[in-house]
Amino acid sequence: MTDAVLPGGFDTISDLRERAEKLLSPEVWAYVEGAAGEEFTVQDNHASFHRWRLRPRALAGIRAVDLRTTLLGASVASPVFVSPTAYQGLVHPAAEVGTARGAGSSGVLAMFSTLSTRSLEEIASATPSGPRWFQLYLQREFRVTRGLVERAEKAGYSALVLTVDAPVLGPRDRQTRDGVAIRSPVPIGNGSEVLSPARAPELRSGLYEFPADASFTWEILAQLREVTRLPLVVKGILTAEDARRAVDGGARAVVVSNHGGRQLDGAMTGLEALPEVAAAVGGRAEVYMDGGVRRGSDVLIALALGARGVGIGRPVLWALAVGGEAGVSRLLSLLNTELAVSMMLAGRRSIAEVDSSLLWPHPDPDKVPSLRNF
Amino acid sequence: MTDAVLPGGFDTISDLRERAEKLLSPEVWAYVEGAAGEEFTVQDNHASFHRWRLRPRALAGIRAVDLRTTLLGASVASPVFVSPTAYQGLVHPAAEVGTARGAGSSGVLAMFSTLSTRSLEEIASATPSGPRWFQLYLQREFRVTRGLVERAEKAGYSALVLTVDAPVLGPRDRQTRDGVAIRSPVPIGNGSEVLSPARAPELRSGLYEFPADASFTWEILAQLREVTRLPLVVKGILTAEDARRAVDGGARAVVVSNHGGRQLDGAMTGLEALPEVAAAVGGRAEVYMDGGVRRGSDVLIALALGARGVGIGRPVLWALAVGGEAGVSRLLSLLNTELAVSMMLAGRRSIAEVDSSLLWPHPDPDKVPSLRNF
Amino acid sequence: MTDAVLPGGFDTISDLRERAEKLLSPEVWAYVEGAAGEEFTVQDNHASFHRWRLRPRALAGIRAVDLRTTLLGASVASPVFVSPTAYQGLVHPAAEVGTARGAGSSGVLAMFSTLSTRSLEEIASATPSGPRWFQLYLQREFRVTRGLVERAEKAGYSALVLTVDAPVLGPRDRQTRDGVAIRSPVPIGNGSEVLSPARAPELRSGLYEFPADASFTWEILAQLREVTRLPLVVKGILTAEDARRAVDGGARAVVVSNHGGRQLDGAMTGLEALPEVAAAVGGRAEVYMDGGVRRGSDVLIALALGARGVGIGRPVLWALAVGGEAGVSRLLSLLNTELAVSMMLAGRRSIAEVDSSLLWPHPDPDKVPSLRNF
Amino acid sequence: MTDAVLPGGFDTISDLRERAEKLLSPEVWAYVEGAAGEEFTVQDNHASFHRWRLRPRALAGIRAVDLRTTLLGASVASPVFVSPTAYQGLVHPAAEVGTARGAGSSGVLAMFSTLSTRSLEEIASATPSGPRWFQLYLQREFRVTRGLVERAEKAGYSALVLTVDAPVLGPRDRQTRDGVAIRSPVPIGNGSEVLSPARAPELRSGLYEFPADASFTWEILAQLREVTRLPLVVKGILTAEDARRAVDGGARAVVVSNHGGRQLDGAMTGLEALPEVAAAVGGRAEVYMDGGVRRGSDVLIALALGARGVGIGRPVLWALAVGGEAGVSRLLSLLNTELAVSMMLAGRRSIAEVDSSLLWPHPDPDKVPSLRNF
Repeated sequence: MTDAVLPGGFDTISDLRERAEKLLSPEVWAYVEGAAGEEFTVQDNHASFHRWRLRPRALAGIRAVDLRTTLLGASVASPVFVSPTAYQGLVHPAAEVGTARGAGSSGVLAMFSTLSTRSLEEIASATPSGPRWFQLYLQREFRVTRGLVERAEKAGYSALVLTVDAPVLGPRDRQTRDGVAIRSPVPIGNGSEVLSPARAPELRSGLYEFPADASFTWEILAQLREVTRLPLVVKGILTAEDARRAVDGGARAVVVSNHGGRQLDGAMTGLEALPEVAAAVGGRAEVYMDGGVRRGSDVLIALALGARGVGIGRPVLWALAVGGEAGVSRLLSLLNTELAVSMMLAGRRSIAEVDSSLLWPHPDPDKVPSLRNF
Repeated sequence: MTDAVLPGGFDTISDLRERAEKLLSPEVWAYVEGAAGEEFTVQDNHASFHRWRLRPRALAGIRAVDLRTTLLGASVASPVFVSPTAYQGLVHPAAEVGTARGAGSSGVLAMFSTLSTRSLEEIASATPSGPRWFQLYLQREFRVTRGLVERAEKAGYSALVLTVDAPVLGPRDRQTRDGVAIRSPVPIGNGSEVLSPARAPELRSGLYEFPADASFTWEILAQLREVTRLPLVVKGILTAEDARRAVDGGARAVVVSNHGGRQLDGAMTGLEALPEVAAAVGGRAEVYMDGGVRRGSDVLIALALGARGVGIGRPVLWALAVGGEAGVSRLLSLLNTELAVSMMLAGRRSIAEVDSSLLWPHPDPDKVPSLRNF
Repeated sequence: MTDAVLPGGFDTISDLRERAEKLLSPEVWAYVEGAAGEEFTVQDNHASFHRWRLRPRALAGIRAVDLRTTLLGASVASPVFVSPTAYQGLVHPAAEVGTARGAGSSGVLAMFSTLSTRSLEEIASATPSGPRWFQLYLQREFRVTRGLVERAEKAGYSALVLTVDAPVLGPRDRQTRDGVAIRSPVPIGNGSEVLSPARAPELRSGLYEFPADASFTWEILAQLREVTRLPLVVKGILTAEDARRAVDGGARAVVVSNHGGRQLDGAMTGLEALPEVAAAVGGRAEVYMDGGVRRGSDVLIALALGARGVGIGRPVLWALAVGGEAGVSRLLSLLNTELAVSMMLAGRRSIAEVDSSLLWPHPDPDKVPSLRNF
Repeated sequence: MTDAVLPGGFDTISDLRERAEKLLSPEVWAYVEGAAGEEFTVQDNHASFHRWRLRPRALAGIRAVDLRTTLLGASVASPVFVSPTAYQGLVHPAAEVGTARGAGSSGVLAMFSTLSTRSLEEIASATPSGPRWFQLYLQREFRVTRGLVERAEKAGYSALVLTVDAPVLGPRDRQTRDGVAIRSPVPIGNGSEVLSPARAPELRSGLYEFPADASFTWEILAQLREVTRLPLVVKGILTAEDARRAVDGGARAVVVSNHGGRQLDGAMTGLEALPEVAAAVGGRAEVYMDGGVRRGSDVLIALALGARGVGIGRPVLWALAVGGEAGVSRLLSLLNTELAVSMMLAGRRSIAEVDSSLLWPHPDPDKVPSLRNF
């Protein structure tokens, strides 16, 4: 690990956002930072972490901290992963290739969006070895969806991350006012047939009608399993009920997430929903979360509440904007080092040693509902 | 549904208030925005919604969202209704006629105040088809009250909304300092006999005496039912006790409301009182609420806590000020679309599918008092 | 009741403080507003009221609100009383005479400090009829204390208010930095023998020694009862334990108070302590409170939690500064009218009708400790 | 006790920080004030005190307050002690000698850091009589550790304070950006062999490796007891589990502390952890705390929750910066006087009289977990 500051680099995670804001146009910044409605939920995402306190243990005799774990069997350098975000070309010319290389050289899992600026094949060839998963937005025609899945499998993506919280885009005031999306269509690297979720329904005969891609049911899991051998991950779960349905449908992992606060304003945060989801899944699948993770200690709290993987979204865009591939690599190095230091300070030498006894108030695993009164 | 921006239109709900403030004089703005005392309660109204989180369900297989419902048997396009507000001519020359047409073309119920700038007949003739209810301030002489009721019935209003939380006007500091009310009497469209609630009592022989219109009892419900066939709605209920009295007195619906925070500073908010009122009414009448509703997700929370109709007040005045009839129509379109999108994102296809399992913490319907410790 | 604005008058309670600040010198303002330490407690005083919500009842059939009550048998126009504050000459030349006349013409009880600018006799002769109580700071020599008590009795004060929370002055940072007290001694109207509580102890042989006037015990109640027939009121109680001791010692009333946040930074607020004190006293004496009361709705909350009298301190100084006697009278008129309107809006016609069912969450009188988790 | 303002002195504790900030360079200020991560925990430290309220008792008959107590048998003028802080030469040329003299003349215990600017012998000779304890950072080679311990014992330090919460330095954003540490190494008075805890691990073969001084276990207590007769104090405990291990390992006292919020961002505060630690220790050792203590009332709350000694860190650096030895002495005089006044106002004449009945809500010593819902 080097402390040398990279060109376009940064010394701490906390000034990263500020630097990115200065570099990006107001339109792109509105797109990156904007969230649903008046953006209370996106603020809750990070604030959720401040409701917990860590109970560090001393003199644990730790010579080295091991952050390594596996995510669906893939060895990774850390439980931190890169959550999928669309249109990365808006913030840096290297786009998803920069992110892929930065994550790949860090040994960290990255998920890439259906709505990437670069094609999924180009991204894959940029990181032959790194663990890469493909995030899927269901398309109006299943033919197009199948095409994407087959291409992802062929290109060496090792899992399929089905996003279920965006049948339609949430209303995003900042983006509507200042955002790039409304002014010019952003090119999608995966071909002209690929569509973003619809922005709004059409009112016809008193009904708010949504496009076909908004109306899938849990049956889609079986359909997808028929067309691919890739393990299925369901992203965008916020309830025990849906977690059970995902696992019953064959999902190998779920990502507890509110889509960076960009979809349903007023939704629970990933961290708030994590305990009930972890309890509902009960080891039958892997549980990840994202939303509001900014620091090593945030990762630690999420691990202690039952996450096996912890995703970061916007910070990767900030880092990509500031330093391209090197920026992403630098961010992951800072975050992983901070996580390692936090674990050392907490007296935990490995991911396996992080459990809920690290938290105050201490959640009773048999009484998840009591968390709700927190 | 068109996304075209209307002349004098607006793109999002959240910048509506800002635009209206720029258009209106400080005196009128003080009247519109001003509330009781130091305006803590009006702030609580909106803040109450932020104490709840939504638990969205995914992959619900929804092709279209149906917002249609009935309010006292009248078919409406949405549970959102226009709460009554006085003197709409202060914000736009179209006054209540603009509101009536904007609501009518949106298929939304509108309630019109006794203290309208235009006469109730003029408002009625502006929207022959739309559901219109007449809000009643009890007058000092029952003769005048009866006259208003008879005119409303004759003009085709389909319900009588009796306001019970304003026997006298609450003390409104901002309005006293900057408001229009104190400087010049505002003309009332329904005739010179019609009076606003008194502003203050007279101190005589050690007693604070109020005018006769302040001293009614629950007997008034029976009196009103004798002079009209219109169904009675009681507006301004904040306790289970009063909700029971209203229903026992023949009310077909109650509106849980603190009058936009303009009456008793320190009162519970409509949303806070909604669970205990819904439990007390227990299906014997319809339950509506208003106060602080600004977004589609707010409507969803109110529905989940037991409201069948959800009113908006000040936002209609903002929209009327910004765009007249078109502004009101635009606001209702944005709000209903946002509600439809929120329901899609929450996995609910119709109003009937919205129940308390959508909320976190999950309220136990048998234990309403536990909500009080929230 | 007239709404005419007095010369130097004001229209609402809420702009009173602002006007007073402009009129007074920074030194005097620091004295008036300053409180203990970093002034968290004085902020808590008012904030305590915002933790309660009122549950108003409608259609209560009230023609007139009666605020009249008795305080130790004296008929008063309202439960609102003027709490004692020292050195009123700092804010207006009329000093306590202005306050006495303003309160007297309003039929409101006023308490006057041992440390008044004018002599207690001069104050008494200003208001021959109004209920006046004398606030007593215990003096180092009992001879001086007895002299004050005898003068008060002779001058027609009808109760003795013994302050027990100021054996020594609390550390007041703002006052130390900017205050008048440190720069020049303020003359005391009651004679040169009368002393203010000491500002600080002397460190001698490892002990922090306080003057003799700081070291009284509950025995002082018996001593005072020997030298006067005046009923005893104990002011500055914040616990059930002390409330019991006061009543056991013969106090006819207690004032739950933290001395306007000027003594022990971090102390409970009067409103927080009120339920446990009211429960402990259990009707054996009258219970009053002060601290943070600024509006009619604050008075209502205090009454609902068990106070029979509710004191205001700083607002009286603001009003005195702004308008002398007329200012005090105007403030009391605004506050009493606001209380009357709040009671009308809450559906309570008299003080006797205000009970804890007016509050949300509803305090269980048998389970005072549960309030502590609020 | 004199109230005369010293040259470079100050009148109140609350303006001390402001004065120090003006005197110090931005780099040094970043070092002094900086804490882990985004500095939420350091803010929580002080905020923790505001969650408690004091229940003062009146008329307790106190002529003098006795703050004297013993800490490990040493008589001290007050339970307030000076927590160890490194590199005091950064803020004032007198460095630790100034602190030692200021504390010594106040009869207050001071702890001095391994990383002092002056040598431990020089500090010791500055205060022949004052109680002085030596804070130990474990060194990579035990030989160096033993050397420090032997020197401390020989120089007359009367206890060894083993810091266990800094096996590696926490990530401190402000310090990284603006701090002195990164720009130039700060000289250490105790010799060139003495090392600060490492700033960061080295990533080798997938493991985050820490230097040997980071990897000690609870066995170190036995090792240290073999090389010294000095009583052992373990500093940096935040859990009942570690408190028990410390006492089982022979510690005579524990300091509940999160290292001024400078180590693990998100950790519990000392005050939050104090009840569970006090309950776990159960009288088998002495319990102290530090973190966020700024006022006499803070000390009182910590005492009431079970602390026997209460440390202050940054305020001592502020005072040293402002006035050297006289500044430290002035700070301790102000703080102790404020504590004495607070105790008088609370009705407690001695440290022994301060117990949990002083607090609201009243903690039940048998039900520590209930505190967690506070």
